[in-house]
Amino acid sequence: MVSIFYFINNEIKRLSVKELTQCLHLPEGILWVDLDDPHEAEEETVLVSLFDVHPLAIEDCQKGRDEEGHLPKVEDFGDSLFIIFNPVEREIHGEGKRAQLRLDIKTTQLSAVLSKRTLITHHYKPQRSITNAIQLLSKNPQTLGRGPDFLFHMIIDDVVDNYTPILDALDDTVDAMEEEVFRSPGQRTMVRILQLKKNIMTIRRVAVYQREMLHRLSRGEFPLITNDEMIYYRNVHDHLVRMTDLAESYRDIVGGLLDAYLSVTSNNLNQVMKVLTIISTIFLPLSVITGFFGMNFKHLPGAEWEYGVAAATVFMAAVGAGMLWVFKRNKWL
Amino acid sequence: MVSIFYFINNEIKRLSVKELTQCLHLPEGILWVDLDDPHEAEEETVLVSLFDVHPLAIEDCQKGRDEEGHLPKVEDFGDSLFIIFNPVEREIHGEGKRAQLRLDIKTTQLSAVLSKRTLITHHYKPQRSITNAIQLLSKNPQTLGRGPDFLFHMIIDDVVDNYTPILDALDDTVDAMEEEVFRSPGQRTMVRILQLKKNIMTIRRVAVYQREMLHRLSRGEFPLITNDEMIYYRNVHDHLVRMTDLAESYRDIVGGLLDAYLSVTSNNLNQVMKVLTIISTIFLPLSVITGFFGMNFKHLPGAEWEYGVAAATVFMAAVGAGMLWVFKRNKWL
Amino acid sequence: MVSIFYFINNEIKRLSVKELTQCLHLPEGILWVDLDDPHEAEEETVLVSLFDVHPLAIEDCQKGRDEEGHLPKVEDFGDSLFIIFNPVEREIHGEGKRAQLRLDIKTTQLSAVLSKRTLITHHYKPQRSITNAIQLLSKNPQTLGRGPDFLFHMIIDDVVDNYTPILDALDDTVDAMEEEVFRSPGQRTMVRILQLKKNIMTIRRVAVYQREMLHRLSRGEFPLITNDEMIYYRNVHDHLVRMTDLAESYRDIVGGLLDAYLSVTSNNLNQVMKVLTIISTIFLPLSVITGFFGMNFKHLPGAEWEYGVAAATVFMAAVGAGMLWVFKRNKWL
Amino acid sequence: MVSIFYFINNEIKRLSVKELTQCLHLPEGILWVDLDDPHEAEEETVLVSLFDVHPLAIEDCQKGRDEEGHLPKVEDFGDSLFIIFNPVEREIHGEGKRAQLRLDIKTTQLSAVLSKRTLITHHYKPQRSITNAIQLLSKNPQTLGRGPDFLFHMIIDDVVDNYTPILDALDDTVDAMEEEVFRSPGQRTMVRILQLKKNIMTIRRVAVYQREMLHRLSRGEFPLITNDEMIYYRNVHDHLVRMTDLAESYRDIVGGLLDAYLSVTSNNLNQVMKVLTIISTIFLPLSVITGFFGMNFKHLPGAEWEYGVAAATVFMAAVGAGMLWVFKRNKWL
Amino acid sequence: MVSIFYFINNEIKRLSVKELTQCLHLPEGILWVDLDDPHEAEEETVLVSLFDVHPLAIEDCQKGRDEEGHLPKVEDFGDSLFIIFNPVEREIHGEGKRAQLRLDIKTTQLSAVLSKRTLITHHYKPQRSITNAIQLLSKNPQTLGRGPDFLFHMIIDDVVDNYTPILDALDDTVDAMEEEVFRSPGQRTMVRILQLKKNIMTIRRVAVYQREMLHRLSRGEFPLITNDEMIYYRNVHDHLVRMTDLAESYRDIVGGLLDAYLSVTSNNLNQVMKVLTIISTIFLPLSVITGFFGMNFKHLPGAEWEYGVAAATVFMAAVGAGMLWVFKRNKWL
Repeated sequence: MVSIFYFINNEIKRLSVKELTQCLHLPEGILWVDLDDPHEAEEETVLVSLFDVHPLAIEDCQKGRDEEGHLPKVEDFGDSLFIIFNPVEREIHGEGKRAQLRLDIKTTQLSAVLSKRTLITHHYKPQRSITNAIQLLSKNPQTLGRGPDFLFHMIIDDVVDNYTPILDALDDTVDAMEEEVFRSPGQRTMVRILQLKKNIMTIRRVAVYQREMLHRLSRGEFPLITNDEMIYYRNVHDHLVRMTDLAESYRDIVGGLLDAYLSVTSNNLNQVMKVLTIISTIFLPLSVITGFFGMNFKHLPGAEWEYGVAAATVFMAAVGAGMLWVFKRNKWL
Repeated sequence: MVSIFYFINNEIKRLSVKELTQCLHLPEGILWVDLDDPHEAEEETVLVSLFDVHPLAIEDCQKGRDEEGHLPKVEDFGDSLFIIFNPVEREIHGEGKRAQLRLDIKTTQLSAVLSKRTLITHHYKPQRSITNAIQLLSKNPQTLGRGPDFLFHMIIDDVVDNYTPILDALDDTVDAMEEEVFRSPGQRTMVRILQLKKNIMTIRRVAVYQREMLHRLSRGEFPLITNDEMIYYRNVHDHLVRMTDLAESYRDIVGGLLDAYLSVTSNNLNQVMKVLTIISTIFLPLSVITGFFGMNFKHLPGAEWEYGVAAATVFMAAVGAGMLWVFKRNKWL
Repeated sequence: MVSIFYFINNEIKRLSVKELTQCLHLPEGILWVDLDDPHEAEEETVLVSLFDVHPLAIEDCQKGRDEEGHLPKVEDFGDSLFIIFNPVEREIHGEGKRAQLRLDIKTTQLSAVLSKRTLITHHYKPQRSITNAIQLLSKNPQTLGRGPDFLFHMIIDDVVDNYTPILDALDDTVDAMEEEVFRSPGQRTMVRILQLKKNIMTIRRVAVYQREMLHRLSRGEFPLITNDEMIYYRNVHDHLVRMTDLAESYRDIVGGLLDAYLSVTSNNLNQVMKVLTIISTIFLPLSVITGFFGMNFKHLPGAEWEYGVAAATVFMAAVGAGMLWVFKRNKWL
Repeated sequence: MVSIFYFINNEIKRLSVKELTQCLHLPEGILWVDLDDPHEAEEETVLVSLFDVHPLAIEDCQKGRDEEGHLPKVEDFGDSLFIIFNPVEREIHGEGKRAQLRLDIKTTQLSAVLSKRTLITHHYKPQRSITNAIQLLSKNPQTLGRGPDFLFHMIIDDVVDNYTPILDALDDTVDAMEEEVFRSPGQRTMVRILQLKKNIMTIRRVAVYQREMLHRLSRGEFPLITNDEMIYYRNVHDHLVRMTDLAESYRDIVGGLLDAYLSVTSNNLNQVMKVLTIISTIFLPLSVITGFFGMNFKHLPGAEWEYGVAAATVFMAAVGAGMLWVFKRNKWL
Repeated sequence: MVSIFYFINNEIKRLSVKELTQCLHLPEGILWVDLDDPHEAEEETVLVSLFDVHPLAIEDCQKGRDEEGHLPKVEDFGDSLFIIFNPVEREIHGEGKRAQLRLDIKTTQLSAVLSKRTLITHHYKPQRSITNAIQLLSKNPQTLGRGPDFLFHMIIDDVVDNYTPILDALDDTVDAMEEEVFRSPGQRTMVRILQLKKNIMTIRRVAVYQREMLHRLSRGEFPLITNDEMIYYRNVHDHLVRMTDLAESYRDIVGGLLDAYLSVTSNNLNQVMKVLTIISTIFLPLSVITGFFGMNFKHLPGAEWEYGVAAATVFMAAVGAGMLWVFKRNKWL
């Protein structure tokens, strides 16, 4: 689906593709063309015929069909900038605690061609940032009137703001995992920790690439971003610095969780071994004592004695109690 | 609460917001405006109406309401610098040893706008460095008279000095943890080590960002910091280099603590296993011997013999002693 | 074998070495000379006599006979560029699952001398990228007509595209290993994980060197690569960035696999120890009880009683059941 | 204590503080002022009144009272350089082997102010490098005559030379630890390894900071260091490169020691477990056999047979021997 | 021993030290002076009196007497370059497999002073690269005729080529270690892995320093290396890049060996524990059954029955077989 917004005389008009063809020759007006999961024919018409986008850029746009999409990048074609951004989405499986522990984060691809008077955005998956930008335009046409670079900043700022709820979810997951590790660690705990680590690495990688990209966009390397707008891009850059920082500290925490998990299972082993040792240490000697009095010697001491059994029982109880006392003293119980 | 200090004719006057409006048009005088946990209305009046601070800077100031605040940064707006600093605070839980082991470190946010004749500071949480600066002003008006960059240096120097007692507390905690690891390691030891690691990472991260920031402030990148003051900023930079260095060596030490903890628990397991092995190795053979003489064969050797039991007992004692001697020789006891 | 393609007057002619000698003096035309597993004599004729390639470059070409070949590099000889690329190949052992788990990746060497009107490629092992380029030439002579730098870009783009199926195979192997680690870990699992790690390191190393090389080729450092072509080299560079990124995330995942493997074997140990402890804890006390009633005292309590055995049996069953209940409560079963 | 050396007319005079005041106004002569553990009054007179050292530099000097002192740094005050160096000292505890294993390394602080005709050195702890420099002066006045930068190079070269015996001691300690780890590892081994690691990190950190500092001093960044002397500073820089390199390889070795220690204790556990398993595997079956013939059935096979016991004994010996043979074949013994 | 080669009129003359003194004043000719394990007197004559080498350079040369020598470096003295190289040598202990496993690599020192018309080489240990250079000179005087920088390149190229057999030996050692780890791991395995790691670190360190040095020599930083020769130095640089790369991949592999070793010993522990558990789980219940029928109750069920023993035996066999079946089903056997 192709949506076209045309800002002229302080208002926004929605155009059809046909009308667009006519507008392109006018000397005025600012255009935003959004390609939302376009057919190949639409891509052909808009990107190739109308805007003459470089074939390599179109090829990169189409990587968006892949599961992970193209990595973030910015390419300078002289009179236009080609930019790829990776919005991040959370897929929710199950409910409540279970959903918390099975955090699943996916990256999508949002491509954009930014030139002096035009912004083209291209994506195969629905993007909340684009929907929000369309709503904003209807309220405040000036958003597009300030130039395509301002509108584009709004969109990527929205994309980056969208990381916040995902990082919050990550925070909850990390807390829930911490509890699981210390309360009820099991085989699946390891699987979950590794899954969590992968998710964090995904976010970190995307944030790092985008941070580098925004660093370049905000330091005046590209003349298409005006000086006035650069400060807004710097702001997005700051948010991405924060994201990267958070992702890195989560990585450290998950590394700590792994250590904790191994230490907890090793402690459990110690616990089990102590029980085994205590049981063996008490009952093996008792077994020898009963065996002793079970020997078939004729002159077994005390065998004839009326209180023999009682004495043996008392002796055995004493041995058992003595062992327990030794354990107590060594703080094993 | 808004506090306004106005230096003119070698003395300090405290102004109300109303008086401030009038002063702003005078060609002379140096201003310091401190916003201490301001209402939105106060922020609106001071930051927006009176000083026309950039909306993005105000937005960043308001991040201070969040638990951790915005990361340290410096932004050059041409005629003013916008700076965020992260003072660090210790929250004390419990008392004595327990408090030592449960060190909890929080970062807060202190924002400042520094221009040729004005310093605006903004914070939601009470800041000791600000209180100290106010006291200093009443004693020595020249502190403000030397320019807002000198006063600002006093404040951040104070913030950085405040790290020292926290690093000392950290040092005590590390020592206490070291003792706990080698004396009485338990399940909570692991939790504490991980908590300690997080605290150290927090301090390190804040120190690194601030070090980078002061590196930029002290090398003449911003004309608002005069050459004479740069050496004072370099001094603060040096302190932060030391902090980072300390935080990094603590990180190494805590890494060593983790290794030590795992090695101690593994040693304990070895100890337990040795006891189990010694007990089994002594009593299992004895059990077989008693079993041997408990067999119901008619012609059991020695069964009829008067000293049979005694001989068997001596034999068993010999076997047990032999085993103990073997352990002794192998240095297992 | 030497194949020579000569582009003149918009068409491609295949020349023999003899014809080549004559063409070299013509002022026009573009040449591509491919040396496919050449004899020393052919190398001597083409590289030394005809094109006067620098002896060090020839020496480097001949490193291609070694198992791994020379690392990727680019050397500027003023009027020509000498470039080494490392295509990657997969050797398949066995079939199905087994082939998946025994991924074996080898690097080969493809050398090229690029000058204003000539491209010389040199390799000892058959290269799919060269075969594809030859087919392309027969369909579209313009591929060579756009200059040797364009043709060379086609070849290395093809080489890099060839990494994709290998990385897909790697992905399958990683998934299969993950399953093996959690389902049926064994001694060979460790061997396989280490083998997988080596393969990933190989790919990563090659990709990193080539990425650096393409970074240099695509930023205008060498005048032989025209501005128009640079964007195509940048495109190959982007692909290599993606490869490196993937290789690095696989390295992290394999690191996680190692941790998982160790944790799984340690969990198995815990499981075994629990069984041992449960068995010992139930049967050692029972053994003492049977031993007790097997003692040869005259006045053994209940020995004469008709329901003695039944009572002892019930008592033993109760002890066993009690033990099981304790385990149940401690969540050991 | 303040020692003052004044080089004029090719000889050295020792001055009192009073005489110094007069000399300061002469156009000729080279001065060296050493403050050895000075009172505050002496610091006030020399640093503040006579030489007008920057207050921040004095503050940094006084950090030398702290246990670790200020980190190495160099600060350019235009007409003077302020330099802090960290000599390293070894504290010896106990004797012989014990002293070797308990290596304890401390850093101290040596501050210096270097200007065109003056060198001021300042330290609270006695410094061998200073003592040596004083002795050298009395033998060869020209050492001071070649300028304060030459004398200062002599001092820091001496400081760096002093690292050699400490690194040799470290080498011995590492060797002794290696032996302990493989011969008689115990709980204190871990403590010692961690202590050793801390010492190595201390040396490494100090060496790295000083290396960076000498890199700056030796590349012509400061005009106070003349071109002729720069090569001498480069020489000191080389020594520090070697120190850092050594410290880093020791760090690797100690990392290996930790791994070795954990592997040795884990091997010991394996050894213990094998003994337990062998004992259990031999004696548990024997125990069942004796139990079998201890059952009170009327028609126990062989009970009446004359050679029953002998047969049973032979059978038991055979079972035991068989088990041992199995162990032998599996290389467990 | 001092060997002097003098190239004049297209031939090589060997000079004595005395003749050298005379030649030094001639305006023509190229000199190579090799000091092979020189006496101090020879060093004094050649380095100090004749060529006036800087005292610090001589001091560095003499570090070659130490076990490891001075680290590689290059120092520019304006009209001469002082270069230190670290050839690597293998010391062989024992024979065959044993020699393979006990790889011992030593670094030596080769110092050189390179000026416009002279090359001085200095070493205390015999250097194959020098011997080869002397042989080459006798065959092809032009090697020296092309200038001392060309000759020096020949020597260091030879030194670097000499790394190849050592890296091959390393490769064999790594393979042999891999086999040992998986076939017959023992206490000495750990010692050997650590030894191997040290050797690899030695090679890597030397290669890295030399790579950096050759990077500087080959990029035109020193006018003494002519443009024509630079390509040859770049070639040596490439070889060193390959060495470093190999050394780093060996480091990774040895890291993997350590992991593998720990995993193998941990697997062995698991194996041992399984045997223990299986034995205990089978024989402890049987022990209780025999104990049951060994109790001295009057009315023991089946005691009087003719087939009692047979029934009990069958029951015990059934219990044992049942246990084995459980193990089989759980894949423990």
